[in-house]
Amino acid sequence: MDERLKKQLDFSLYIDKEKTILRQTHLSFGGRRENDAEHAWHMAIMAYLLAEHANEPVDVARVMLMCLIHDIVEIEAGDTYAYDEEGLATQKKREDAAREHIFGMLPEDQKEALTALFDEFEAYESADSKFAHSLDNLQPLLLNNSNEGGDWKAHGVTAKQVYGRQRKTQLGSAALFEVTDRIIKDQIRKGNLPEE
Amino acid sequence: MDERLKKQLDFSLYIDKEKTILRQTHLSFGGRRENDAEHAWHMAIMAYLLAEHANEPVDVARVMLMCLIHDIVEIEAGDTYAYDEEGLATQKKREDAAREHIFGMLPEDQKEALTALFDEFEAYESADSKFAHSLDNLQPLLLNNSNEGGDWKAHGVTAKQVYGRQRKTQLGSAALFEVTDRIIKDQIRKGNLPEE
Repeated sequence: MDERLKKQLDFSLYIDKEKTILRQTHLSFGGRRENDAEHAWHMAIMAYLLAEHANEPVDVARVMLMCLIHDIVEIEAGDTYAYDEEGLATQKKREDAAREHIFGMLPEDQKEALTALFDEFEAYESADSKFAHSLDNLQPLLLNNSNEGGDWKAHGVTAKQVYGRQRKTQLGSAALFEVTDRIIKDQIRKGNLPEE
Repeated sequence: MDERLKKQLDFSLYIDKEKTILRQTHLSFGGRRENDAEHAWHMAIMAYLLAEHANEPVDVARVMLMCLIHDIVEIEAGDTYAYDEEGLATQKKREDAAREHIFGMLPEDQKEALTALFDEFEAYESADSKFAHSLDNLQPLLLNNSNEGGDWKAHGVTAKQVYGRQRKTQLGSAALFEVTDRIIKDQIRKGNLPEE
């Protein structure tokens, strides 16, 4: 087989492992824990549906691809919960090594393209990245909202911590941050999320 | 909340159910059964990586979105196994009703866009659709190949049946059909797939 195609297929089979990386989020209405591949699929569709709510014009196809690949490094680096301070401290080092190894399985041009897209997501600077992060925040919030804040309760997370992360949604979309703010306030009112 | 945004968010939460629709395919190297959302995520990334092997030029972003949404109807219509003759006979009717209801949750323009993309996929005529189908065939084949044909064995499927479906991969990509043909012949030789 052509060496280029072989690399593409080896990578394709390898990333199947992303389906085994579990997140702290649970599926809607009392489901099991969600995995990274499902989360990425969900975000990518939301990117298409919600692009009109981005603060700045975004390239929907780029945002979709960014969403699809943004957690591939977790196959080797593991998932780091948004409110796990200890894990967050070593996250970058673990993810950089994984990025080199995993994208390094691809032909050079595709390695470069996906690495650049991953780095752009991480940098949180471009319009596409900021909007993708809004989706990375909103998608689990929708599920957790359907579960009466169960994921927050399980980890003793406070509204202050949730706002610390979710506030950045407004960098990508003021409209989606309005939804976010309403959901958080609603969960505080219901007693599912302590203020501090 | 704005009615349009509310519809988009209600749809987004509803499609979470796709993560609970199980396929007959198992994850690579002896894993559990795969679900539709994982399968769609995998296909969409493969669409990006393998687009250069399509017979005709394809619009990668359209193919990616087509892959992401092609199984949403199964939330209500269920998954129909590729070699289940009885299920295949009623599949279209079940999927048409689901298509109306599920995409009908969206604002009219997005309902029309996604319905048209779904119909285009089903029609198997455009370059984008033919290539998306090649991926719909190849993705589970890669997993099943890593599992020594376990999914075929579980259902008593023959090489003749596998070729009946997989042969159409060449409509979208001659190069990917070459890979397909090699995998099938290899599994026949290993005794994992009877000829008839």
